[in-house]
Amino acid sequence: MDVINIGILGMGRIGRLHAELLLYQMDRLRPKAVYDVSPQAAEIGRRMGIQVADSVDDVFDDPEIEAVAICTSTDTHPDLMIRAAQAGKAIFCEKPIAHDLGEVDRALAVIEETGVYLQIGFNRRFDPSHRAVHQAVAAGELGEVHLVRITSRDPAPPPISYVKVSGGIFLDMTIHDFDMARYVTGSEVAEVYAQGGVRVDPAIGEAGDLDTAVVVLTHENGAITTIDNSRQAVYGYDQRVEAFGSKGMAVSQNPGATTTVLWDKSGSHGATLPYFFTERYIPSYLAGWEAFAEGVLSGGPSPVNGHDGRAPLVIGKAAWKSIQEGRPIRTAQIG
Amino acid sequence: MDVINIGILGMGRIGRLHAELLLYQMDRLRPKAVYDVSPQAAEIGRRMGIQVADSVDDVFDDPEIEAVAICTSTDTHPDLMIRAAQAGKAIFCEKPIAHDLGEVDRALAVIEETGVYLQIGFNRRFDPSHRAVHQAVAAGELGEVHLVRITSRDPAPPPISYVKVSGGIFLDMTIHDFDMARYVTGSEVAEVYAQGGVRVDPAIGEAGDLDTAVVVLTHENGAITTIDNSRQAVYGYDQRVEAFGSKGMAVSQNPGATTTVLWDKSGSHGATLPYFFTERYIPSYLAGWEAFAEGVLSGGPSPVNGHDGRAPLVIGKAAWKSIQEGRPIRTAQIG
Amino acid sequence: MDVINIGILGMGRIGRLHAELLLYQMDRLRPKAVYDVSPQAAEIGRRMGIQVADSVDDVFDDPEIEAVAICTSTDTHPDLMIRAAQAGKAIFCEKPIAHDLGEVDRALAVIEETGVYLQIGFNRRFDPSHRAVHQAVAAGELGEVHLVRITSRDPAPPPISYVKVSGGIFLDMTIHDFDMARYVTGSEVAEVYAQGGVRVDPAIGEAGDLDTAVVVLTHENGAITTIDNSRQAVYGYDQRVEAFGSKGMAVSQNPGATTTVLWDKSGSHGATLPYFFTERYIPSYLAGWEAFAEGVLSGGPSPVNGHDGRAPLVIGKAAWKSIQEGRPIRTAQIG
Amino acid sequence: MDVINIGILGMGRIGRLHAELLLYQMDRLRPKAVYDVSPQAAEIGRRMGIQVADSVDDVFDDPEIEAVAICTSTDTHPDLMIRAAQAGKAIFCEKPIAHDLGEVDRALAVIEETGVYLQIGFNRRFDPSHRAVHQAVAAGELGEVHLVRITSRDPAPPPISYVKVSGGIFLDMTIHDFDMARYVTGSEVAEVYAQGGVRVDPAIGEAGDLDTAVVVLTHENGAITTIDNSRQAVYGYDQRVEAFGSKGMAVSQNPGATTTVLWDKSGSHGATLPYFFTERYIPSYLAGWEAFAEGVLSGGPSPVNGHDGRAPLVIGKAAWKSIQEGRPIRTAQIG
Repeated sequence: MDVINIGILGMGRIGRLHAELLLYQMDRLRPKAVYDVSPQAAEIGRRMGIQVADSVDDVFDDPEIEAVAICTSTDTHPDLMIRAAQAGKAIFCEKPIAHDLGEVDRALAVIEETGVYLQIGFNRRFDPSHRAVHQAVAAGELGEVHLVRITSRDPAPPPISYVKVSGGIFLDMTIHDFDMARYVTGSEVAEVYAQGGVRVDPAIGEAGDLDTAVVVLTHENGAITTIDNSRQAVYGYDQRVEAFGSKGMAVSQNPGATTTVLWDKSGSHGATLPYFFTERYIPSYLAGWEAFAEGVLSGGPSPVNGHDGRAPLVIGKAAWKSIQEGRPIRTAQIG
Repeated sequence: MDVINIGILGMGRIGRLHAELLLYQMDRLRPKAVYDVSPQAAEIGRRMGIQVADSVDDVFDDPEIEAVAICTSTDTHPDLMIRAAQAGKAIFCEKPIAHDLGEVDRALAVIEETGVYLQIGFNRRFDPSHRAVHQAVAAGELGEVHLVRITSRDPAPPPISYVKVSGGIFLDMTIHDFDMARYVTGSEVAEVYAQGGVRVDPAIGEAGDLDTAVVVLTHENGAITTIDNSRQAVYGYDQRVEAFGSKGMAVSQNPGATTTVLWDKSGSHGATLPYFFTERYIPSYLAGWEAFAEGVLSGGPSPVNGHDGRAPLVIGKAAWKSIQEGRPIRTAQIG
Repeated sequence: MDVINIGILGMGRIGRLHAELLLYQMDRLRPKAVYDVSPQAAEIGRRMGIQVADSVDDVFDDPEIEAVAICTSTDTHPDLMIRAAQAGKAIFCEKPIAHDLGEVDRALAVIEETGVYLQIGFNRRFDPSHRAVHQAVAAGELGEVHLVRITSRDPAPPPISYVKVSGGIFLDMTIHDFDMARYVTGSEVAEVYAQGGVRVDPAIGEAGDLDTAVVVLTHENGAITTIDNSRQAVYGYDQRVEAFGSKGMAVSQNPGATTTVLWDKSGSHGATLPYFFTERYIPSYLAGWEAFAEGVLSGGPSPVNGHDGRAPLVIGKAAWKSIQEGRPIRTAQIG
Repeated sequence: MDVINIGILGMGRIGRLHAELLLYQMDRLRPKAVYDVSPQAAEIGRRMGIQVADSVDDVFDDPEIEAVAICTSTDTHPDLMIRAAQAGKAIFCEKPIAHDLGEVDRALAVIEETGVYLQIGFNRRFDPSHRAVHQAVAAGELGEVHLVRITSRDPAPPPISYVKVSGGIFLDMTIHDFDMARYVTGSEVAEVYAQGGVRVDPAIGEAGDLDTAVVVLTHENGAITTIDNSRQAVYGYDQRVEAFGSKGMAVSQNPGATTTVLWDKSGSHGATLPYFFTERYIPSYLAGWEAFAEGVLSGGPSPVNGHDGRAPLVIGKAAWKSIQEGRPIRTAQIG
């Protein structure tokens, strides 16, 4: 069996997660080396029994490494993508590609030119329950899709230090939902209206961000998607996707931490939802890596390509502009 | 439109319920007169605007009354059935026909001879959700039925004064489940094993009864039904029916008092189940009366006939014998 | 027990429904007379055993009639309300009061002046499951309310003839959801953004209306409500309300036509949702009438008063203006 | 961090599963060596990068190996347990210990004498949803437990070759439910009644076994457990546990393969249940290994000890005797 050797760049939380998944649960992908600017972070790779590269060059120069996973801070993504493409490596890049469209386009130009395989880390598409909603639409089971509802609420906000460099809620959190909206409707977004507030933590507002938001997307095929986000749901990780059309509706619901229900004189009581995105999404990460392996080995198209990485960023910028100007914004205005 | 005039005998809790349903919700049935030995109970009929008969004879002798609803105490059922049959009235008789098989047979012989329409008040068959389980089996959607599970738990036991004349849990409570088992499997019961205890109220045990029980029925077609009963479920009226077969399973579940679910940091919280059998079963009573009207007007067969009234009594007696003898009992032994 | 005599004006679909509910299921309210311009419609009252008035005056002049239910076409509501108020009758008025704000204010001025009891027919507030969502917010169980989601989808659109005089989707259909949004958040709406399309029936578009819509309401207390509507949900009457806040979430869900689930090799299969608004909402109509009786007999405040009747109309007009101008509209602009 | 080295005896389906879980998902347990009589099966160990022992002795004699996992055929369990105990190794032994009570007692005597840690592989106790039912009972949330219902239905029967040496349904399949019944009620079983048939495959009957069964257990504390089993549920792996008591009920339900529900004009459609016991039970196996590591490292008691391994076998034999004799059997008669 073909095995793809991967170099993991960045051993922060998400890099570590990918390293573990690749090491323990993926047959066709093998983490051959990891690199991180921080020695402590790279040490984790050592403990996992993966070779720790001394520099990014060592990873790009290793002929045995056929692909890289870019899990570093957002601002470093474009340059790393370009180097990887020039080194002929297939690329898995965590979202977002960048916060700046010019930077995104600079990197995508090289990807295009070199023809390397690129897959962007929008993992929720690969969640079996969300994917089933997409499939119902794609297979025509819902007829023409009219309305999509997406709810994404995290158990708690990220640290303010992260918030300050995150690009704000629309580029950091809702960006997943922008990707999901394109994935489920099968249609580009033409117009964006956003509304929001600071309801969870004033510090988030002081950092120039929002923690509670609603976004309405009007798609080219006439579908309308409404998204609601909150940075704090006390009951756990709430992630629901619903598509409604001329022939019916498909809804992916939240799994409970357990399926157990207790009944007493005050009624029924069930578990919270899972509190950790890993707990909720490990199947989706694994399915994403399966797709990566399949794409690289077969030479087939990437299920989440450069354009799929760019479009949600445009929508996110339109959302911020809508907040600032208090009116809907056409994506064509953004770029 | 044809309207059937009905005389209601017995204005206790169940007689009053039927009177209201017939008066307010049934187009094809009209309560023309009510009778009760107790003047206070009969007074309720007056307040509802229904003529109060001075005697049972007045009801049987009224040529305009085409049918009677027998809602009196169990010991009076056989004689009233016989008189009704002799008077040529169609009969709706609340369960059970009687506690004594000889009495049942005495009444059924006259029904048979006169050919009047007889429908026994096993209303749960008509509950839309339970009926859908029966229909799945009858339509072959489950293939051959292998296993049936029935759970019936009341919010609270009846008064001890009632318990003492009720025939005990198997003739008063489980008798509904014996009817449901025949209805769902479409097969007679060959053997009965029962086990039980007094877990809710010692006074129930002192009255010679049980309040917690399990019954296993082996049907002639090989299906095995397990029933569990309790006289006290603090969370409301719990009534579930499940049929499992070679091609699948059908399950009727409990409706909550509301559909609302609250989520907080301790998990999810839903409503109790309804606490009143009326709240839970009014649709079934109405559907039962619809079937009665249909049967009487069309001359068609009764959906719950004399045999359907007799068989659960036999099963109930076999259950008591099983408790006493500590072994399974063949219904053929009972009669 | 006090019984309130009611005169029902208008015996179309909704008038007939109220007449039946009042006649058969409400103890404290008695339909004493009905009136309709059409003799055929009024005939229905006769068949139900209710006196048919020869004119509206006969109803207003009858000293025994203490309240009127106004169930006529929308354009007649203001004048009938004024006459009822001048005659000292308590008033139940079906939604909407009128399509024109001037007309609404004209009628409400007389109501105010005469001090008669007024209850507007926004029945969904009284649905036990939706009401439980309101109660969770009102009781502080959700903390501060941040986000509300309301989905309302009908099984089929109304006749085009009705569409043409309905005031359009926002004044006819979404108006219920505008009321629900105020009811659940406990806060007035400051700004409205609407987006929509014609996806179900081109004739609806030709009539100048929409059949598929999304509305975003920004409340004075910072809550954001998103509403989605469709005139055609093939799976039945879909009506869901969800409130999310700092301490949790409350969700009212759809009841199935039955609770039965069938399992086979292709998965699980449950019933459709109910297809008729009566089937879905009879408990809410009854609870609304209970509240009316309570309010009239006790002299207490109306749970759905004139202001509650006016505010959703303002929101609906803001929604139409938002559609026309392609931007959010402040309700203060409307009136 | 302490790491326990484990030797895995038997690399059939379950041994392989444990090897993978230990290798990839458990930090405190490390599979140091595997052994299997069949070279092909042992080869799998090699491919997984685990040392393949040449003989069972090599495993028992290795001073670095502190524990063994016995995953061989049932008839070899007692001897291997004895040797392991004599070698001072902690023992994880797959169910059942043996089919013969004398053999079980022979092995348990040595365990007792040597004092080694023993954990029997009844993994379902560790499933988070089933465990939550046990915890509700243990914490007194249900008051006194009155009734327990356990449903276990497999998607398909095992090969006939396996059936012939399995000890039959009660020692192979229902044995898990006997353990669950003791675990949930916290009480020993005093009496057993079993009923069953051959409904899935005649060959199973020809092999002297049943494929469809019901068992009623009467516990010493008065609780009554009813179990239903089938070797073929077309909709997937159906495993439900329900406990009912004086203060309420706790129910663990089946998770669907996805959470997605499709709604169309025929109703709602959800996914099948998972079809593979691994898919359903991997969390339980991992939790079981966590408990093993905890017990061995801390010197604490085993959560599933020798007695827990013996008691379900006694119940299973009583079930067979009940089938043969057509009456309930007291476990005291078995041994």
